[in-house]
Amino acid sequence: MKILVIGATGTIGGAVADALAARNGRDGAHDILRAGRRSGPLRVDLTDTPSIDALLEATGPLDAIVCCAASGAMTPLTEPSDTEFWTGLDGKLIGQVNLVRRSLTHVRDGGSLTLTSGRFAEPVPGSSLGHLVNAGLDAFVHAAAVELPRGVRLNAVSPGWVRETLTTLGMDPAPGTPVADLARVYVNAVEGTSNGSTFTPPSTPSQPSR
Amino acid sequence: MKILVIGATGTIGGAVADALAARNGRDGAHDILRAGRRSGPLRVDLTDTPSIDALLEATGPLDAIVCCAASGAMTPLTEPSDTEFWTGLDGKLIGQVNLVRRSLTHVRDGGSLTLTSGRFAEPVPGSSLGHLVNAGLDAFVHAAAVELPRGVRLNAVSPGWVRETLTTLGMDPAPGTPVADLARVYVNAVEGTSNGSTFTPPSTPSQPSR
Repeated sequence: MKILVIGATGTIGGAVADALAARNGRDGAHDILRAGRRSGPLRVDLTDTPSIDALLEATGPLDAIVCCAASGAMTPLTEPSDTEFWTGLDGKLIGQVNLVRRSLTHVRDGGSLTLTSGRFAEPVPGSSLGHLVNAGLDAFVHAAAVELPRGVRLNAVSPGWVRETLTTLGMDPAPGTPVADLARVYVNAVEGTSNGSTFTPPSTPSQPSR
Repeated sequence: MKILVIGATGTIGGAVADALAARNGRDGAHDILRAGRRSGPLRVDLTDTPSIDALLEATGPLDAIVCCAASGAMTPLTEPSDTEFWTGLDGKLIGQVNLVRRSLTHVRDGGSLTLTSGRFAEPVPGSSLGHLVNAGLDAFVHAAAVELPRGVRLNAVSPGWVRETLTTLGMDPAPGTPVADLARVYVNAVEGTSNGSTFTPPSTPSQPSR
């Protein structure tokens, strides 16, 4: 399969690209195209729709697209500026939905799209927009799945905390999912038959971010 | 209580305003201010943030705000224009969240905000944005509740189909909730003590719209 991984320079996206590159599909090893926001030959900014179009133009037809690029910051509800408050909506929610809409003509029959959602253990101050984005994205994936053409599948992965990210942040890594385990969840979404689902890594409690 | 009902010219908003006007609170009959998008002395367009500010400036301090103005059309996933696809996001999701953000300084201590969400029986073609909006709004209400100042409460009502609306549309009214029953759900949200919840009318199955 020819697979585009968006956000491949990040912790999760890099691990997903590596895990997919190590697999052998029915037609041999996967061909992995890695896209990032700031480096590498393939670049994309999900908040900039023309850059999504340009990326898909550059890759040509694909069997699968995995998007690990999405992130969102905590935003106090009373943040005075609308622009600051709503920034997290653009890439993770609107950007990924726009990616789906544009990918429908670029992914081959029976191909797949896998997005990145997120989850919180519970509401905490500053998380209201994050909750909106994650729940909205999961609901979109579930509902849009019935509308996809030509056997194309759509799923999301909800990572929770990643062990390597916690280590980088100087936090206790124990509650995190090893990124290699998380990458397998994405691989299963790409190589499996599910449609309209949001997957979480096994045996990891809900975590306070991503 | 001094209560602002937004969308008071609509089927649901009108019934909510009437139901609240018929109630007696601890300090006597409620004082109901009715706002609409196109008629009446108080006007607001939730997609136009300055008009929200102007409305709240005109009303002065309030004990409660009920928003029944939100609606959304079905939108095919492959709708070619971004503008058309995302229109439903502006009023119902972004507009109601902006209303909450701006109302926090206008609602009195211990006051309340009640929004209008929605639900579908199941995903159907054209419903992906609606699912995104409703789930995002419910998740926002749940999470934002922990951040509200001065004992202010935030809830949503998820109407499902309304009997009177079904009749107007020439459809079988039987599966709908009588609007008077629905109005009581809003009244309970305003006069009760709940915070962070989405309420549905009793004994009504999930319906394919609103």
